[in-house]
Amino acid sequence: MTTHPQLLRVHNFMVSRDGFGAGEDQSLEHPFGSAIDPSALFSWAGATASWPGRTEPGGSRGLDDCFTRDWGRDIGAEIMGRNKFTPYRGPWEDHPDWQGWWGDEPPFHTPVFVMTHHPRPSLTVSDTTFHFIDADPATVLARAREAAQGKDVRLGGGVTTVREFLDADLVDTLHVAVSPVELGSGLRLWESPDDLLDRFHRDVVPSPSGVTHHLFWRR
Amino acid sequence: MTTHPQLLRVHNFMVSRDGFGAGEDQSLEHPFGSAIDPSALFSWAGATASWPGRTEPGGSRGLDDCFTRDWGRDIGAEIMGRNKFTPYRGPWEDHPDWQGWWGDEPPFHTPVFVMTHHPRPSLTVSDTTFHFIDADPATVLARAREAAQGKDVRLGGGVTTVREFLDADLVDTLHVAVSPVELGSGLRLWESPDDLLDRFHRDVVPSPSGVTHHLFWRR
Repeated sequence: MTTHPQLLRVHNFMVSRDGFGAGEDQSLEHPFGSAIDPSALFSWAGATASWPGRTEPGGSRGLDDCFTRDWGRDIGAEIMGRNKFTPYRGPWEDHPDWQGWWGDEPPFHTPVFVMTHHPRPSLTVSDTTFHFIDADPATVLARAREAAQGKDVRLGGGVTTVREFLDADLVDTLHVAVSPVELGSGLRLWESPDDLLDRFHRDVVPSPSGVTHHLFWRR
Repeated sequence: MTTHPQLLRVHNFMVSRDGFGAGEDQSLEHPFGSAIDPSALFSWAGATASWPGRTEPGGSRGLDDCFTRDWGRDIGAEIMGRNKFTPYRGPWEDHPDWQGWWGDEPPFHTPVFVMTHHPRPSLTVSDTTFHFIDADPATVLARAREAAQGKDVRLGGGVTTVREFLDADLVDTLHVAVSPVELGSGLRLWESPDDLLDRFHRDVVPSPSGVTHHLFWRR
């Protein structure tokens, strides 16, 4: 077996057929913006046995589940943008009790590095510790790799953060689930999935659930 | 998150389009029987980055790799038939030096339970310990589940062993990769993949590599 390279991986990133992953007007009530019904993008994942948000037994273990269960495999840290952590902008002191969207048991179970221009002390919720870092993508990735202790690092989004790491050419693999809905506006991952083919191989895998999985890996 | 059920999983099980997984005349030179060129069944897996037998860097990280990398995820023990462990029949004393097909570093890294009518002391090679058990499938599965300490158990084959566990209705999920070759004879997994639909859901996923992945999970 070869030595394991320490990859930066994007998983279960959900976009509309026209390439949008979120609206522009995120709020507490509308984490993905008011124009987006998240269920249109997320329902394929919620139906699987391995979706971290599942609260009942059951769920499918077919193709879609292959992707939801791959999310945690061999991951030692996550990187996310501030807008994945909170709907609030500005100084953290304005919302001192906010601990993320995930309640008392965040699904990460690893260190999480939150990119923000407003540093603050680290925050531990159950077995997840959030670190708040004001730095460029390469620096944040170096920190996350060190914390991951040889395991891979997951890039958790949102759209703006994924775009930043793609622009810096730091992403090794991406799994994007394209839903058969048109949103028309919002924050865009791409004009077309073909945009990435200069740097990535790709498999396109239609699922019985109606989404199309795009799997990219570095050339 | 729900409590994790302890599944019995079959992964990367490779059969021909006409349902054969091995020939009848296994030998040291022909682990899958003389009529089968293993490369016809295995090449899709060998091309992936996560195939345990890969000895060089590189390899694809697309759809086929989703399956090869799922092989070790959350597995705490493996069960295999004697014929997966050795080409030799009869008493173990006739081949005292045989330690399996995998050299000094077997890819399992967990306890492995070898089903055989010829018990013998356990054998440790690197971080894999092989236990040799003369018992029915349900008893072997109970032993493997205990050893897996809450993780899943993988059923590693060969064909005869997978059939025994299917007949005893002990298998929770199966991934079978069907290659576009006809073998005409040998040890048969099924007459048709539809044979299992009375008890399992199924997704059928064609891969760019030419194999078709069949994913089964319990109804």
